[in-house]
Amino acid sequence: MTCAVTVIGGGTGSFHVLSGLRDLPGLEVRSIVTMMDAGGDSGRLRDEFGVLPPGDLRRCLVALSDESALLRDLFSYRFSEAPLAGRSFGNLFLLALTRLLGSERDAIEAALRLLRIRGRVIPVTWDHAHLCAELADGTRIESEAGFSAPGRDPGNPIRRVHLRPGARANPEALEAIHASDFIVLAPGDLYSSTIPNLLVEGIPQALQATPARVVYVQNLMTRSGETHGYTAARHVCEIARYAGRVPDAVLVHGDPISAELIARYASESAFPVEIDAEALRAQGVSLLYEADLLSESPLVRHDPARTATALAHIFARLTPGASPTR
Amino acid sequence: MTCAVTVIGGGTGSFHVLSGLRDLPGLEVRSIVTMMDAGGDSGRLRDEFGVLPPGDLRRCLVALSDESALLRDLFSYRFSEAPLAGRSFGNLFLLALTRLLGSERDAIEAALRLLRIRGRVIPVTWDHAHLCAELADGTRIESEAGFSAPGRDPGNPIRRVHLRPGARANPEALEAIHASDFIVLAPGDLYSSTIPNLLVEGIPQALQATPARVVYVQNLMTRSGETHGYTAARHVCEIARYAGRVPDAVLVHGDPISAELIARYASESAFPVEIDAEALRAQGVSLLYEADLLSESPLVRHDPARTATALAHIFARLTPGASPTR
Repeated sequence: MTCAVTVIGGGTGSFHVLSGLRDLPGLEVRSIVTMMDAGGDSGRLRDEFGVLPPGDLRRCLVALSDESALLRDLFSYRFSEAPLAGRSFGNLFLLALTRLLGSERDAIEAALRLLRIRGRVIPVTWDHAHLCAELADGTRIESEAGFSAPGRDPGNPIRRVHLRPGARANPEALEAIHASDFIVLAPGDLYSSTIPNLLVEGIPQALQATPARVVYVQNLMTRSGETHGYTAARHVCEIARYAGRVPDAVLVHGDPISAELIARYASESAFPVEIDAEALRAQGVSLLYEADLLSESPLVRHDPARTATALAHIFARLTPGASPTR
Repeated sequence: MTCAVTVIGGGTGSFHVLSGLRDLPGLEVRSIVTMMDAGGDSGRLRDEFGVLPPGDLRRCLVALSDESALLRDLFSYRFSEAPLAGRSFGNLFLLALTRLLGSERDAIEAALRLLRIRGRVIPVTWDHAHLCAELADGTRIESEAGFSAPGRDPGNPIRRVHLRPGARANPEALEAIHASDFIVLAPGDLYSSTIPNLLVEGIPQALQATPARVVYVQNLMTRSGETHGYTAARHVCEIARYAGRVPDAVLVHGDPISAELIARYASESAFPVEIDAEALRAQGVSLLYEADLLSESPLVRHDPARTATALAHIFARLTPGASPTR
């Protein structure tokens, strides 16, 4: 029997989770993607052409494409020479499709076909909204691009995020949430990749109403300016705050991270997220699942296959009749 | 039995001939393409990135692609908004492939696969050469981009064209010429699309040595600055001069062109090419074939289907045993 899984997120976190899940048998995978990116090439295209930022969507398309490795590599290619330096070929691909077909909806449908997507990639909204933040001292940041601006004082944390203007959910995203057996909240920048999806009108309501069980894949490292000092429980509490629902399960990396990697990340004020198991359970998380999730890369990243295997175990445990705790 | 046809040219003329021939049964079609373009987006990419100019190649790829109409439209799409205005998506596609794979040869092989090319598209050379002209008054033009520069005096015609530096033929182009039953010289700008192929070392020798019969698809209109006042015989004579071989057959448009179209083109100093049949025969052209070749478009263009049908008749007539004249 096929099990419907919807991954919610954006950026590289979703990419790694989707890349792993796509190869598991018996899963029907959909990806709901944040559309509030405002930095990098996506932000540039947004400013220049008034289109929805394509970067998060592009990564999820590549993760679920059944096309040749070459076309997927091409889609991920970034030009390095002036005057195209920094431009992503995949973003230009989506831009050209949008202009050719006259709408972003038609362009994404076409991209799903051209890239032979296994499953669906679903923009969380069709509305053009900016992610804004209010900091502890009352300062406001009016665009996602400002979240990691060099001048930001790490001692002045984010108090609240919201969208401006407000955005309504893409009906297809709501359908996917309602029709899922499992919802996976992908790892990624908490305030700029995960929570933006939860700020879209209709998404929290759908998450609260769906019979699906919700699994959060806990970030591996904190991020300066966003989640400095946050434990796992603090991440989960913020998700609960915006989703109106506590995840049923949290997947955490259980093995130590090498001292060398930790030192490298410390230079960017990023540290391993402390797993405060008691606090998580106290919040109502019924299953805390530990596994070795780390990729062999020189970055602290989720390994797609390891993460997917752990998720499959969690899905089995959350299925009625299985033991609810570990 | 399959009949091997090699189309030599560049630009829209090759596109129309290839688009028609691809749909005829029993033909194996190859396209040899000029790589000396220096104007427009191709010239810009050449200057900016030091790559071979992709425009002529791109048009031939689209003509022979078995991919969806959508992907072919996308490949032909040109951005219209700053800062990408004028950039061809297909050219960016070829540039990204070249950078990703590290060589133009690998990029073109990959493009042939990705676009599911029926037949082959073969750059006439892998060398980077510029097309130069010497005018009647001794002035030199050092790049193809200068051929149609606004300031050019139409009373100062081209005396001679050459490549700088010289270029050697792509071995695959020589093989295609040797292994063909028919060579079609596509219509197009005589000095900047057709003859550049004949300037490549090895191509004239191959055309002289091949058992294939050569058919020239006569241009419909003269072009100011290139072929002003040229009759059909003058076109053929210039081809003979650079190829070292007179075409066996010439395909010409036999029906009148509407007064309205003629008036529109006259404003750009372009006029219908006079068909001087006697002079053509005197030059050694054994078959002069007239047909209605005009497309229904508001431009004076070769209709792909009509041109291909006429070519098929010519191929039949040139096949040993058939009547050699009309």
